[in-house]
This record gives sequence, C-alpha cells and structure tokens, in this order.
Amino acid sequence: MLPSATGLPFDDIRALIAAMPSADAAAVAAVRAREAQLTKPAGSLGRMEGLAEWLSAWQGREVPEVRRPLVAIFAGNHGVTRHGISAFPSSVTQQMVENFAAGGAAINQICIAYDLGLKVFDLALDLPTGDITVEPALDEAACAATMAFGMEATAGGIDLLVLGEMGIGNTTVAAAVAAGLFGGPATDWVGPGTGLDAEGVAHKAAIVQQALACHAGHLDDPLEVLRRLGGRELAAIAGAILAARMSRIPVLIDGYVATAAAAVLWRLDHHALDHCQFGHLSAEPAHGLLLAKLGRKPLLDLGMRLGEGSGAALAAGLVKAAAQIHAGMATFAQAGVSGRSE
Amino acid sequence: MLPSATGLPFDDIRALIAAMPSADAAAVAAVRAREAQLTKPAGSLGRMEGLAEWLSAWQGREVPEVRRPLVAIFAGNHGVTRHGISAFPSSVTQQMVENFAAGGAAINQICIAYDLGLKVFDLALDLPTGDITVEPALDEAACAATMAFGMEATAGGIDLLVLGEMGIGNTTVAAAVAAGLFGGPATDWVGPGTGLDAEGVAHKAAIVQQALACHAGHLDDPLEVLRRLGGRELAAIAGAILAARMSRIPVLIDGYVATAAAAVLWRLDHHALDHCQFGHLSAEPAHGLLLAKLGRKPLLDLGMRLGEGSGAALAAGLVKAAAQIHAGMATFAQAGVSGRSE
Repeated sequence: MLPSATGLPFDDIRALIAAMPSADAAAVAAVRAREAQLTKPAGSLGRMEGLAEWLSAWQGREVPEVRRPLVAIFAGNHGVTRHGISAFPSSVTQQMVENFAAGGAAINQICIAYDLGLKVFDLALDLPTGDITVEPALDEAACAATMAFGMEATAGGIDLLVLGEMGIGNTTVAAAVAAGLFGGPATDWVGPGTGLDAEGVAHKAAIVQQALACHAGHLDDPLEVLRRLGGRELAAIAGAILAARMSRIPVLIDGYVATAAAAVLWRLDHHALDHCQFGHLSAEPAHGLLLAKLGRKPLLDLGMRLGEGSGAALAAGLVKAAAQIHAGMATFAQAGVSGRSE
Repeated sequence: MLPSATGLPFDDIRALIAAMPSADAAAVAAVRAREAQLTKPAGSLGRMEGLAEWLSAWQGREVPEVRRPLVAIFAGNHGVTRHGISAFPSSVTQQMVENFAAGGAAINQICIAYDLGLKVFDLALDLPTGDITVEPALDEAACAATMAFGMEATAGGIDLLVLGEMGIGNTTVAAAVAAGLFGGPATDWVGPGTGLDAEGVAHKAAIVQQALACHAGHLDDPLEVLRRLGGRELAAIAGAILAARMSRIPVLIDGYVATAAAAVLWRLDHHALDHCQFGHLSAEPAHGLLLAKLGRKPLLDLGMRLGEGSGAALAAGLVKAAAQIHAGMATFAQAGVSGRSE
C-alpha cells in the first residue's frame, strides 16, 4: 500500500494513480438485478439505490454491507495563520484534537448516533506548515510522507471511510489549492470559514492572492499545488482517498477543505474519485463551486460549515441505511406482492 | 385525547385546533443558551441546530432527546382506483401491509438502521372509500372517526412521531385534496405516482378534474375537502398530527400524500404544523409545489418517491443525531477550548 522507497516521492503517487482499480462490473450487475426485484416501484428509492450500487461497485460485493465504517479526521496547523485569516487562534487545533479524544465534539456524537468508528490523526501540530504567502507549505518529501501517513487510515478491515479535517486556517489554504487547481481570482474561492466578517474575508482573499502570486509558474502539476499551497491534513486526505481506492473501500468526503484535497487527485486523473461520494454541501460558499468543477452533487444540504468530518459522517448514516435497505428487503416473489398492472 | 362525544364530529376537531399548545419558550431559551457554549463556531451546524431547538420547543425539555421514536404507517384503499389511475392493482395495499408485518419492506430496513419503532395501521382495506369522481370518499362521521383512530399513533410515551402511508391510488386523492385546498388545475397537482407514463398522468389529471367538478361548491371547509376528496390514511395522518400537537410530540411528515393530509390542518390554522418538520422532497413533482404553499423546506432531497414513511424515517436519523449532538457535546469551558480571537 505504501509507496516504494525508490524514485522521487511524487512519482510513487503517480504510479499508484496509474494502477487504480476500476469498479466491479459483475457486482454492479448483480446489485441492479436484485434491485429490480425488491418490493417497491422501480427507481422509487432514488439516490439510495445509487448508494447501494456504489457500495457494491467498490466493495466488489454482490450485496453491499457497512459493518466497519470509520471516520478519519486529520488535523494540521498552518503558517499562514500568522496573517490573521481565522476567527479563532491556531491553538484551537490542538485543543479540538483533545476534545475529540475526550468525546466532547460534534463528530463524537454523530459517531455515537450511527455507530461509526473514529480515529484522529494529529499531523505535527507543533510544526506548522510554511507561510504560503512567501514559501511552500511543505517540501516534496514531507508532502509525500504525509500522503503515505494518510494511507494508514484504511487499515483495520474497514468497509467505508469517512474523511474529515480540523485545522485553524485551513479554509484559507483550501481556497489557495482550489484557485491553484482551477484558476480564477482568490475572491471566488474564499469565504467566512469559522466566522470572518466581510472585512476579514477581503483580507483572507488578499492573502490567498499573495500566495498565488508567490507560487505562480509552479502550479501546472496538481501535486505541486498541494505541497506549495496546501497543508498536512490536505495531503493526508489525498493519500487516504488513494489508498482506499487501491483497497476497494468506498469513501465519503466531507466539506470544502476535504474536497479541495480530493480535487488534487481529480486533476491528476478524472477517474480518481469514482469511488467517492460527497457527504454535504458546506455553507462555505466556494464548496458549491468546487463541487461543480468536479461534476458532483453532495448527499446532504443542511447549511453546516463545521468540518471535522461532520457532514460526511451524517451522510454515512444514509449510506448505512442504503446498504440495509438493499440487503434486507424482500423481493416481490418472496413477499407475494403483485407487480405492475400491464 | 380523543374528541368528546358531544357535538358534530368535525366540531370536535375544530375545538382541538383552537386548543393547540404553543412552543415552550423557556425550553427554547435554554437550548439556545447551551448551543452558544458548545465547542464549535456559532451557527456552524446549520439546520442540525434548528432541529435540536425544534425538539426542545415541542418536547418542552431543556435538553432534547429521542429515545422512543415511532414510525406510524396508515394504509387505505380508494374507490377511485376503478378508473385505472395507478400502475399497480389495489390488492398491493394489503400485500404491502403483510410485507411490513413480515419485515420485508424498505421502511422495515430504515427502522432497523436507525432503531425506530414501527406500527402499521390497517384502515378497513376491504372497504375502499367512495369513488371521488361521483361521491364523497367518506361521510363526516367516518372521516372524524378515522381521524380519531389516527390519534392512537401517539400512544406509548413516544418522543418523535414519523408519519407515512401506503395506499394504491393515494397520490390521486392527494392531488385532489391539494387542488381542493389551494386551487389550480388538476394538471398542477398530479404526477406519475408509482410509475405512470405521460398518457397515464394525463388520464389521472382528467379523473382528478372530474372529482373537483363533482364536489365544486363544497370545498371551502378544509375538513370537507379531506372527507370528500381524501381517504382514510389521509384522515388518520391529520388526526395523528393533531394528537401529537396536543401531547407535545414533534412530528416528521413524509412525502406528497402525508403532506396533503397535513395541509388540511394548515388551511384550518396556519400554526397547526408548527410542531412538524418535513422529511424529504418527493420526486413526485407536485410535492415541491405543495411544500412551497406551506412555506417549508424538507430536510432531505434524495429523489425518492416510495411513500411508506421512508423519506421521513431517513430524516429521523438526522433528528436523532441532532439530539445526540446537542446533548452530548462539551462546552468551550468544559473542554478547555479557546473562543474566538477578538
């Protein structure tokens, strides 16, 4: 699973992307055949039917199941916070990691409600990334190593991976990554994050624009965008998505920051996110724009903007129900229910 | 809880509506005060925060909880099916009731996934309602008695009521009720239901238009609309909503048919649904129009059109999580997390 020690680190990532498995066509055919026999009008469960098919396609199982779902939260700190681009001090990242460990955060409650496992990955919080307005966030070795660390989230026989993050300042670096990948002015990609006012958002846009100018001419390669403008939690999420693909684990991606990390892979290969669903449309305004670039519609739209995997974990509740529906329903023949009048 | 035996039956319903309790302002104030102290940016859980507040407002509890949620499905048969307005024969209503009892339907699986109780109320399936194109569906005594029967769904100390239905032909009577309450041509209110083609939908619209013509001049009173154009499951749902209000039980309403039943109460009193949330935007096209008349936005939009409470039961998963989040999260002070930078 981990990249080999040979070659340049980013070349190992590219080699994994070139080797990504495809959906299991036989499992998809089986789930569709069974779906047509279940006691309901054809198509009447809408996206829930699509979720069952998606689970089967990537799990390679004729009957999908979600027995070991895991929420993985990656936490990182960011040098760019020195420019005052967040409503909260960066000490909050560590404090929230401790809150996750103590069971006091929103994500802990969602995991209780839906019986989801939870692991929190603390990514060198004492060593913030470089200030992207004047230097790269990470060097190539550190970025690739963090991606490899993120791959560890797929261990333990899990059958659904829910990816989220925590990091004061990370909607700023997510905006920089999105702008680096898709172009457009910084103002298209920034928003209030944890609660900036209009003046704060304008300042944040100016900082992102400064970062884009600093790294101009080096942003053709999406992995360069990730290491120069991103951060450790974004690198780890990209690594986790890729590792999940290699292990045929379906992935639910949370809000704006996690989607920016995923978009790096999509820019490398437009099929790199075929095993992923997006859990929730963030209230952070640029999330909708970013999802439109990826051609994706999230499962939920509840006006949330918390991060820490919360939107995707709520969507995991739907995914669990979708698996149960497909696996547990009777067929027309089993239940003795008449089909359509002809 | 049941209407008294005095007076005309519909007058007892009107008396209950006049006596509806209001939201508990003290509980709302308490939940808002606690919400502001939880370890997250203010407002960052969007509609999930609103759900916690709504639960508290109607449960009258300072900390909301969902420990005994119940899905109640009301099943009825309709004389109007003689006009061939459904893709399925009306025998399927009884067969699906048996499928619910055997645990083979979609709603059974959703109840397993989210640990929801389930009760199915069989409403005289051997005695279809009158054919609304030529006569009222029910007389006043039968309609009021069915509303009273629906009130039984609130028994047993439940703290969340999820309302759904099953009844071949009931999107036709729902369309008739919606048109009777809000006006407009039948074509605005009909859709494919379980799977009619364009020709079938046009025929269904003609049948609804015929029913509206038959009862013209008698539709000023919403309860008359219900008994003349509705059906037993709609009457029972209206009764259940009203009884839940009297017992301060929050209600989740499913798709087009259940919403048409709820709309009867809304036309009697625009505050009659204040204790209700709408679970899911049905793919049945007129549901969006009906919700717009009520000024409501549902919690989910997954393209479903199954009925049997499925959309509202999925939303109950969100409501359970909302209660857990509010009750289980630590405050900033408890967790030692810093507040906003000032």
